[in-house]
Amino acid sequence: MHHPKAASREGVAQVAADILARLRAGSPRIHCIINSVAQNFTANVLLAAGCVPSMTLSAEEIGAFVVGAQGLLVNLGTFDRERRRATEIAVVTATQHKLPWVLDPVFVDRAPSRAVFARELIGRKPMVVRLNRGEFYALAGNAPSQDAAITYARANRTIVGLSGEVDLITDGERVATVANGHPLMTKVTAMGCAGSAIVAACLVVEPDAFRATTAALIILGVAGELAAEKSAGPGSFATAIIDAFHSLDGQLLAARAKVG
Amino acid sequence: MHHPKAASREGVAQVAADILARLRAGSPRIHCIINSVAQNFTANVLLAAGCVPSMTLSAEEIGAFVVGAQGLLVNLGTFDRERRRATEIAVVTATQHKLPWVLDPVFVDRAPSRAVFARELIGRKPMVVRLNRGEFYALAGNAPSQDAAITYARANRTIVGLSGEVDLITDGERVATVANGHPLMTKVTAMGCAGSAIVAACLVVEPDAFRATTAALIILGVAGELAAEKSAGPGSFATAIIDAFHSLDGQLLAARAKVG
Amino acid sequence: MHHPKAASREGVAQVAADILARLRAGSPRIHCIINSVAQNFTANVLLAAGCVPSMTLSAEEIGAFVVGAQGLLVNLGTFDRERRRATEIAVVTATQHKLPWVLDPVFVDRAPSRAVFARELIGRKPMVVRLNRGEFYALAGNAPSQDAAITYARANRTIVGLSGEVDLITDGERVATVANGHPLMTKVTAMGCAGSAIVAACLVVEPDAFRATTAALIILGVAGELAAEKSAGPGSFATAIIDAFHSLDGQLLAARAKVG
Repeated sequence: MHHPKAASREGVAQVAADILARLRAGSPRIHCIINSVAQNFTANVLLAAGCVPSMTLSAEEIGAFVVGAQGLLVNLGTFDRERRRATEIAVVTATQHKLPWVLDPVFVDRAPSRAVFARELIGRKPMVVRLNRGEFYALAGNAPSQDAAITYARANRTIVGLSGEVDLITDGERVATVANGHPLMTKVTAMGCAGSAIVAACLVVEPDAFRATTAALIILGVAGELAAEKSAGPGSFATAIIDAFHSLDGQLLAARAKVG
Repeated sequence: MHHPKAASREGVAQVAADILARLRAGSPRIHCIINSVAQNFTANVLLAAGCVPSMTLSAEEIGAFVVGAQGLLVNLGTFDRERRRATEIAVVTATQHKLPWVLDPVFVDRAPSRAVFARELIGRKPMVVRLNRGEFYALAGNAPSQDAAITYARANRTIVGLSGEVDLITDGERVATVANGHPLMTKVTAMGCAGSAIVAACLVVEPDAFRATTAALIILGVAGELAAEKSAGPGSFATAIIDAFHSLDGQLLAARAKVG
Repeated sequence: MHHPKAASREGVAQVAADILARLRAGSPRIHCIINSVAQNFTANVLLAAGCVPSMTLSAEEIGAFVVGAQGLLVNLGTFDRERRRATEIAVVTATQHKLPWVLDPVFVDRAPSRAVFARELIGRKPMVVRLNRGEFYALAGNAPSQDAAITYARANRTIVGLSGEVDLITDGERVATVANGHPLMTKVTAMGCAGSAIVAACLVVEPDAFRATTAALIILGVAGELAAEKSAGPGSFATAIIDAFHSLDGQLLAARAKVG
């Protein structure tokens, strides 16, 4: 039914290194709709990676902020009527101005109303949906196999970035896997949100969204591995991964990328 | 008037170690209604201790989140009409589903409307009220002596967990003191909130709420002592205490517990 | 047109050291209206510097909190109708109770509605406006030169604290420059907000607002330099600067102050 196109490990790793270099050079402005738990960490991750974050959620000004940004992250985190209105404005504005946007359907497996809203948003064509396995199941109604992810990406004309011990990225045709990362990443809140923000940033500097998403998840995973080497637990790990986003260079990234 | 029942130091310390082991094994899901200042730190403390935190405050979905959780923390932090409505839904849901819940009446000594709301909530029978001395005074109308705490616990059929240089825990009959901790704990925001979250987590794995609260305050205090040994100030302390919650084991906990 | 009054480097540095000592001794209570991205970091910076922060934004209780505080920071961060109402109440209360207050017009260069609101607030006579160069331009309509800052301060009867590689402080008559700081300060979110909070704290303990603002920016810059010496990137820097606020003493401050 589908024919995933293979790419050489070296090729993918080198593309990721190039995208990282463009991230450093371009300082993309990323607007984030994100829950308050994750705001500070995500802003610091974006700054460390060389980006300029903004985070306002006010319906009265979010349009202006999105117009002034180059990429948008919509993270469902806490949401209510006002947050939904802000999301509505942000997505319409991003679409009009042809900004890439990423949907991170956090915790859709915990509240039915959130899953309903996430499905509506997927109909609005996010360039990428980044989510974990439980969230995929809640959204797609299928276990998160490679086939299910490919089918979902194709049906919704989006890229799926599925996090797990091995990440899976697919645009419905191509498939990549990223085996970088560290177990401590699951012990720090907002790590996934920060990863989604890096996806949004890579989309700004790389027009091929499949490659951009793959690069972002390699950057996240390698930063996690470097941080783990300098950590005594999840507290120092959360600090060290921000340092790692800042010091990471393309050569190290390419050398450590575990892509398939 | 009252006859606090003494328990051996070794007995209490061993119970705390057992409760910690059950926390690690059980990974309880704790929903937190908590101000935005404290959300990230509290989420990371819960993750480090082996729990699964959630933090949404939206009235439209908080019921579903509480149903999916095993314990609830209601921290007054910032509150307004919407927050009060979310609290209302969360407390009703927790009561219906027999989830243990903890009230942390933050800063009730600073705003009268907050004290009024806290008193209403205490009428809804939280399993534990964890607070500091100033908050106790504002709430109970008495100086925070041992007798006043016992009387208050008895009158309100709750456990009082009173933080201070020496913590005092009472269910109106039994009394325990915990002398663990470190002065740097007062120099990091949300330390008390994180402690209350650990109380909520211990209530999930230990049916005797007096023992659970005592264990939680020992865990918090010992983590603080371990963190202080590795800190150069309150910034590195906040990081180190998260590492300490992650690495703490029952043997170390039992050895360092200063209970009376 | 204007005659900036020079002050000796030693004199200014010694005043800053005295103000720091009074900050430690006085533990001023500072209420902050600040976006959720910056709340935790700012609260921890204030605690480390010896202050007592509060952060509620609820219109129903902010008046009581401001009455109980000694200084107020109004940071525009995210704002909407409710936030504006809270700001209104807080500013009226601060004015009635003669509390010093600081305006930090974050990101006024990104949304026109925010700039309009900031201009309204400046008409309410904040004691100090602390902002960066882009924000000054958006607010004053002029490039941020020394002359423009002096003119703006005089016209609005306020102190301007203009951040940059070299900070500029003026009350419309006197001018000071502070050349302390480190590039990593631009790589951590909320660093400017935390600086503005320190300005508010210094205003509580020093009646000469020009001197208080200069001292606060020296404290911020020296803390940044000390932190950079112990950091491997922006993550560890954010932690180390909190340690530095805590350990900083007047002698070190006076020795390192680069004032002009």
